[in-house]
Amino acid sequence: MEFFQTRTDLAIEAQEIVQGKGVEKEVPGVKVSIEHKEDWELQVIRVEVIDEEGVKAIGKPIGTYITLESPLLKENDIDAHEAFIEIIGKELSELQELSDDGIVLVVGLGNWNVTPDALGPKVFSQLVITRHLLEYMPEQIDESLRSVSGISPGVLGITGMETGEIIQGVVDKIKPDLIIAIDALAARKASRVNTTIQMTNTGVQPGSGVGNKRMGLNEENLGIPVIAIGVPTVIDAATLVNDTMDQLLDTMKVEVKKTGPFYEMLENINKEEKYQLIREILDPYVGSLFVTPKDIDATVDRLAHIIAQGINRSLHPNLEAKDIDRYIH
Amino acid sequence: MEFFQTRTDLAIEAQEIVQGKGVEKEVPGVKVSIEHKEDWELQVIRVEVIDEEGVKAIGKPIGTYITLESPLLKENDIDAHEAFIEIIGKELSELQELSDDGIVLVVGLGNWNVTPDALGPKVFSQLVITRHLLEYMPEQIDESLRSVSGISPGVLGITGMETGEIIQGVVDKIKPDLIIAIDALAARKASRVNTTIQMTNTGVQPGSGVGNKRMGLNEENLGIPVIAIGVPTVIDAATLVNDTMDQLLDTMKVEVKKTGPFYEMLENINKEEKYQLIREILDPYVGSLFVTPKDIDATVDRLAHIIAQGINRSLHPNLEAKDIDRYIH
Amino acid sequence: MEFFQTRTDLAIEAQEIVQGKGVEKEVPGVKVSIEHKEDWELQVIRVEVIDEEGVKAIGKPIGTYITLESPLLKENDIDAHEAFIEIIGKELSELQELSDDGIVLVVGLGNWNVTPDALGPKVFSQLVITRHLLEYMPEQIDESLRSVSGISPGVLGITGMETGEIIQGVVDKIKPDLIIAIDALAARKASRVNTTIQMTNTGVQPGSGVGNKRMGLNEENLGIPVIAIGVPTVIDAATLVNDTMDQLLDTMKVEVKKTGPFYEMLENINKEEKYQLIREILDPYVGSLFVTPKDIDATVDRLAHIIAQGINRSLHPNLEAKDIDRYIH
Amino acid sequence: MEFFQTRTDLAIEAQEIVQGKGVEKEVPGVKVSIEHKEDWELQVIRVEVIDEEGVKAIGKPIGTYITLESPLLKENDIDAHEAFIEIIGKELSELQELSDDGIVLVVGLGNWNVTPDALGPKVFSQLVITRHLLEYMPEQIDESLRSVSGISPGVLGITGMETGEIIQGVVDKIKPDLIIAIDALAARKASRVNTTIQMTNTGVQPGSGVGNKRMGLNEENLGIPVIAIGVPTVIDAATLVNDTMDQLLDTMKVEVKKTGPFYEMLENINKEEKYQLIREILDPYVGSLFVTPKDIDATVDRLAHIIAQGINRSLHPNLEAKDIDRYIH
Repeated sequence: MEFFQTRTDLAIEAQEIVQGKGVEKEVPGVKVSIEHKEDWELQVIRVEVIDEEGVKAIGKPIGTYITLESPLLKENDIDAHEAFIEIIGKELSELQELSDDGIVLVVGLGNWNVTPDALGPKVFSQLVITRHLLEYMPEQIDESLRSVSGISPGVLGITGMETGEIIQGVVDKIKPDLIIAIDALAARKASRVNTTIQMTNTGVQPGSGVGNKRMGLNEENLGIPVIAIGVPTVIDAATLVNDTMDQLLDTMKVEVKKTGPFYEMLENINKEEKYQLIREILDPYVGSLFVTPKDIDATVDRLAHIIAQGINRSLHPNLEAKDIDRYIH
Repeated sequence: MEFFQTRTDLAIEAQEIVQGKGVEKEVPGVKVSIEHKEDWELQVIRVEVIDEEGVKAIGKPIGTYITLESPLLKENDIDAHEAFIEIIGKELSELQELSDDGIVLVVGLGNWNVTPDALGPKVFSQLVITRHLLEYMPEQIDESLRSVSGISPGVLGITGMETGEIIQGVVDKIKPDLIIAIDALAARKASRVNTTIQMTNTGVQPGSGVGNKRMGLNEENLGIPVIAIGVPTVIDAATLVNDTMDQLLDTMKVEVKKTGPFYEMLENINKEEKYQLIREILDPYVGSLFVTPKDIDATVDRLAHIIAQGINRSLHPNLEAKDIDRYIH
Repeated sequence: MEFFQTRTDLAIEAQEIVQGKGVEKEVPGVKVSIEHKEDWELQVIRVEVIDEEGVKAIGKPIGTYITLESPLLKENDIDAHEAFIEIIGKELSELQELSDDGIVLVVGLGNWNVTPDALGPKVFSQLVITRHLLEYMPEQIDESLRSVSGISPGVLGITGMETGEIIQGVVDKIKPDLIIAIDALAARKASRVNTTIQMTNTGVQPGSGVGNKRMGLNEENLGIPVIAIGVPTVIDAATLVNDTMDQLLDTMKVEVKKTGPFYEMLENINKEEKYQLIREILDPYVGSLFVTPKDIDATVDRLAHIIAQGINRSLHPNLEAKDIDRYIH
Repeated sequence: MEFFQTRTDLAIEAQEIVQGKGVEKEVPGVKVSIEHKEDWELQVIRVEVIDEEGVKAIGKPIGTYITLESPLLKENDIDAHEAFIEIIGKELSELQELSDDGIVLVVGLGNWNVTPDALGPKVFSQLVITRHLLEYMPEQIDESLRSVSGISPGVLGITGMETGEIIQGVVDKIKPDLIIAIDALAARKASRVNTTIQMTNTGVQPGSGVGNKRMGLNEENLGIPVIAIGVPTVIDAATLVNDTMDQLLDTMKVEVKKTGPFYEMLENINKEEKYQLIREILDPYVGSLFVTPKDIDATVDRLAHIIAQGINRSLHPNLEAKDIDRYIH
């Protein structure tokens, strides 16, 4: 099965694309289950890539991908946010078992200078970091707290180093049992931007994220499990044009009921070719344009809060909400 | 002549759109002259809207629109920037004659929380502000300095007040002889984003800018001349899709040399209708999506520096470059 | 009674200084009452300057000064903060009666570039601003909302204009019934920094605040009542040295029980003279040094949140906490 | 010789304190030479700690400490800044010989959330980082560029990890030949704040800096030479009170020519005891108060620019000023 390489970091989108094209309803090697929570206009979608057939089909590694989708994620709705925090906390705990004294390193990926790529650094700044307290003043803190440290190293263009190199160096010193990495992603559909959180136990793949890593942050490279949490905060301009155009042509086709050689040509044109043509038209800006909502600054702040609190709740289950605030500097 | 209402704040783009459609080469009521400065890959384009015929043709008020276009505007090239600063300083002085003791109020329009709309506030923060020095410590400063004050009031959603109301109030108290307003704009072509500076003596029109003013900042409303300086920092998503699609279809037409009813339909569809269709497909995100380059943060900083220094040079012609730095807090 | 002019913006400190020196327990023309709320280590102190005698005694205008003092104001304690917000909301409503359709303009004073002076701008950014909604989309919002607009104009050195001039201009256009101005203050005692909120119906006096206004924002100048809310975020270096030194000498006197001409000299030296001597020793840095806590960034954020929510609750009593969040962009 | 432990990170201050107290003019084991450059009101002071006697005397490790002192460092004087950049570039090259293909890691120490501690992160953000370019696109860049990478990891309270641990991890991966670490320091004299740059080949000692490291960043711990560049951006409150008070008492003594038991007591009081007394009086705020100039935000920006350009010039001697700008994102 040929995989059409439009850029998406979301397993659910990759799966939809493949499914949409094929004859069969199910993609082999991939299991999908969906749970609706109507209170919060929420869908929790579980994509499991079971074997190499699944890997080949949707281009994502073997593992579990949990996706929360709700338009309320980008709204200023604190009741809904509280519900999302609770769900994230629970799902994270289920994605990766961790003993009570397991040590965690959280990594905020991305570039703090580029608003839609600043999600990781912003989550990092709101975590309950405890490793130094447990080490230097154990008598002063709740002994049920887990040892958590964190870092937000910046991107290749800022440091001159692959993020993976830096994290490997830190892992060698700190010897954590688990890494949780947070990253801004690229989506294919405009409607998913800032309304979707993906959590996976497969880590961060090379080439994913807004900032294009060259080296994966995963168990294969780092020797310990890596949970990745991501939110699509941008769609790339070529994808937006491509997909909107397809929808437009479909609409026209229905409306005018006229066809002919040009329409057939449009229908039959190799999708990859059309996408490349669009990229060329946009060039030389294609590499540097992105599409993002006007309120991206405020929305990234909200998403960072939700994810950070979800992580805090998952890692320190005995800490009450108000105590969490006390630990965040 | 019907004017196709795709969103552009640039007189040169409005003129191009009209010219592109018509039979005649010249747009009646509009004069255009272009000067090339090859050293800096620069074009200085002068659009003059002479009379009501011109106003009707391109939808912009009577007055002069000077546009600097150079890809180096968005690059980190300090020699080119120095040249642009010099040109901006000179052109501003020619756009509006001002006596040596003329009092100037500079207004930085836009929303400092939204990166591509923060151009105005960032220019404002780099101006040589002198009014208070001339008033409270005249003996300590160079008497050749002109009285300059400034404000960056924020947008309607932040203050609850029309920017025009605030500026009118301040004008009534300060009684300036000239206003210079800086604003981020929307362009139609991706290639113009961050590579174009427009300066005009017609002020800021209602509905223009990234943030959509309801009331114009112009001589009609404020009683004194208003120079507006703007840079397109975004294109809206619907425009990008629309224009890229047109180019794609043209490319295909040439390549395949096949036509037929569907192509004719596409060719003949009312442009406004197609644009509306695209807006509907993008909806509900159409209002909130914008397309901007990845390095918008750094680029807006650079553009703000160039424009601020150009204004400083125009308003304080006797101040040397290094002294300008001394006056900027 | 001579008033010793050490810099303080707090009525309660001015009153303490005078009281500390005199023979009588009560300061004539000034009434003080204190309420303790032990739950939150809180004191609510009410200073009323009744007549000209009081004005002369403590150097503050006739009016009411309500001071909240609690060390928890600077801690990350959300339960305590909720209590403070409630009290601020209530006290503000009592300081100035306002009809349901009274129009309010909130002014965030201070310099956003200087952390301890950024309190006003930060409060402003978290207010429920409604004037534009009531005007342009009345059908979409709760009709019980009051018309609130706001501005944070920046300081004299940034705009070249007295803040008072700008506000007067805006008041003339908007015609509000009440102004609420928020400002960072200077305290005399280190222990009051970031632990004290003063609310007064006397407005902002010339020369007060971290940034030294030349013109008062008060009913006399603006023609409408002005409530001022302030938090001391700095102490000036000369005051800190002066007061610590006095305490040190007292401690030594008690400890060594030795006196003699040098001690008598120290005792008898004119306080103003000693303070001037300290300023001279610190000079030329005296004008530019301030003393502030290490965590000033985080603390100003917390205080801004508490004050903004207190104002929101006072101005929109029918808005629930979670709805307030929806209105803040 | 007893060393009075008032907090200073500057070798020149430590040396002055010891010298000021003793009978001898020279401190044993310490060589000092001073060069005046009158053009820029600049002193370049070279302190060499030669042996263990020197270490004991002034409490600083064996090595070279070069101090630039000029009031123009904190002014907005671009001609002077250009001169300082040149001198820093030259002195850095002399502090540590480095082969042309030597690999450098630059470390921006400190907390980006606390203005006076943000010097290191701000310098880091303006460096010409080349390692990734040399590795991934060697054909596109000037081959005379040296391999430079950098990191600004944040402080213990933010990451939960000692900065030293993180840097050790990164050093193990990257294997640099030299580390350059930039840090904000504490000074003893108000006049040195923001007017002094210290460069040393002894690295960063435990307990130094605004943020109090527990582990040194030096050759002993990291196995490679470490150059440390620091600027005092704060003085602690207790030191300010202590020193101002000493000056005040000296002034009074001269003026009144009266002595007696109290004066003698003050004269004879153990200095350490008096300092402790002051700390107690200031307590509990002593740990959290610092004294810093009002314009610290702008000044730290300027100092960061000067130091970053000095480092850039030292590490990439063939790069022209304008090309340096091109490489900084």
